[in-house]
Amino acid sequence: MKCRRCHEPAVVEIRRHNAGFCQPCFLHHCREQVRRTVEDLSMIGPGERVLVAVSGGKDSLALWDILLDLGMAADGLYLGLGIGGYSERSAAYARDYAHRRGSRLVEIDLPGDLGYDVASGARAARRAPCSACGLSKRHLFNQAALDGGYDVMATGHNLDDEAAVLFGNVLRWSMEYLSRQLPVLAAGEGFVRKVKPLVRLGERETAAYCVLAGIDYVIEECPMAEGNKHLGYKAALNAIEDQSPGTKAAFYFGFLERARPLLTATTEATPSEPGGVEVAPCERCGSPTTSQVCAFCRLLERAVAT
Amino acid sequence: MKCRRCHEPAVVEIRRHNAGFCQPCFLHHCREQVRRTVEDLSMIGPGERVLVAVSGGKDSLALWDILLDLGMAADGLYLGLGIGGYSERSAAYARDYAHRRGSRLVEIDLPGDLGYDVASGARAARRAPCSACGLSKRHLFNQAALDGGYDVMATGHNLDDEAAVLFGNVLRWSMEYLSRQLPVLAAGEGFVRKVKPLVRLGERETAAYCVLAGIDYVIEECPMAEGNKHLGYKAALNAIEDQSPGTKAAFYFGFLERARPLLTATTEATPSEPGGVEVAPCERCGSPTTSQVCAFCRLLERAVAT
Repeated sequence: MKCRRCHEPAVVEIRRHNAGFCQPCFLHHCREQVRRTVEDLSMIGPGERVLVAVSGGKDSLALWDILLDLGMAADGLYLGLGIGGYSERSAAYARDYAHRRGSRLVEIDLPGDLGYDVASGARAARRAPCSACGLSKRHLFNQAALDGGYDVMATGHNLDDEAAVLFGNVLRWSMEYLSRQLPVLAAGEGFVRKVKPLVRLGERETAAYCVLAGIDYVIEECPMAEGNKHLGYKAALNAIEDQSPGTKAAFYFGFLERARPLLTATTEATPSEPGGVEVAPCERCGSPTTSQVCAFCRLLERAVAT
Repeated sequence: MKCRRCHEPAVVEIRRHNAGFCQPCFLHHCREQVRRTVEDLSMIGPGERVLVAVSGGKDSLALWDILLDLGMAADGLYLGLGIGGYSERSAAYARDYAHRRGSRLVEIDLPGDLGYDVASGARAARRAPCSACGLSKRHLFNQAALDGGYDVMATGHNLDDEAAVLFGNVLRWSMEYLSRQLPVLAAGEGFVRKVKPLVRLGERETAAYCVLAGIDYVIEECPMAEGNKHLGYKAALNAIEDQSPGTKAAFYFGFLERARPLLTATTEATPSEPGGVEVAPCERCGSPTTSQVCAFCRLLERAVAT
């Protein structure tokens, strides 16, 4: 197979594009996919400061690398989750990349700075670990971006992630989640803009990007995620994608283009207006919430008390 | 495990209902599911004559059996597809059931009566076999019901079938197919009402029904369906259902209740009004069509000419 762009021998094949790429053209292809996504969806404006959530995995390191290569003012944010050796190894990859690139990595440590870890937070809040982790990340990422004066918070969700989340939301026809499933969530009172610039790249592609760009990343999956539903949705979609390359992209982008506008009966959702419900500042942290005390502060209270 | 209804030892477990049933109570449960579906969705009115499409498989024989047990005037219709030994064996099971039950089985034979089989029809029309087969069935089932003066055409599509079709339609966000995916399609000019009374039963349940009711059926799958996308969708949903029993039912009924009304922007679809397109009688057969000659007559012409 030859490179689609330069006709030299290809080293990567992307079946859904029915195309192969050599090393330099593949890196160019990935950057172009991100550049187009960022531009087409108005994710990041000229001169805006971006905070990239960096886990030490392939997706977030590829995202940070590409945003920097595209000339953006992108700092990293590493959140230590307190998941033993997995967290230590992940942090090392994130720090190593930041060091080599001479870029700034903001660090927050759940156990050290907040007084709980994912396991104890999940137990205290009676949530699944992935749920407690997601809640903590959403709150702390946003807070760190606000504190640091960033315009945009970027996460490394790729096409596989978004298709799997969409699949889960569609299986339950969760209208509120479906209405909020967008690659860009506009800024609102107390929330910075949130963007997912990797939605045009699959996870095989972000892995290949890191390998071909010489970026080391933590390969192991989070040990707490084992057996969660999201992984089941991914596996189901992978089996179908294998038979019919392009299915995931058609599913996700078809949703954004054709289905979502019909499913969101009334107004566009922003983080501060989840379906038109009354939102006010949390009594403790000031974050917008639909309760008196936001879900994160409730988790924090219980986790630190136990 | 004990029977939910009579507390005798159970012989069947239905995980999504978190319930077990003994033999007589399971048969009663299946009949009740069908009776409620037929009543709640106004599928079949008192005294109406029903034609049941009978393939010789578990679903259609269970359906016929249940409708007869519920006291309905239900005849069978067997369409011979010309798929060698598979068709011969299927026909034998359908005839045997009709004979034992003393019920009328209408028979149509694609090769004998129409001059083509699924394989030659598919080749001639340049369609996948399942597509040529589906087109032939839709036309010939409807025609047979009209010719015989039946009010309703009933097919044995079960919950697994409908969830898999829905999954395929959702993966592509095929708005027209989604708008037409209903367990009841109202009668229209040239079309009898079409109903799917088994949508509340999964395929493990129709198989168990036949076993426990002493109904012999053809177990082998159609050899021409191997590797088709529908089977891939079923396998993907089965893997998820296995982890989370009830997912398929929530997906399918959630679609009917919450999503479909939003996705079908304008009007309710009936077979004669596919999305508001102009419909006129086919020049050859008189069936309503959006072209001069309907898709079935075009397939027939090509298949018989070759």
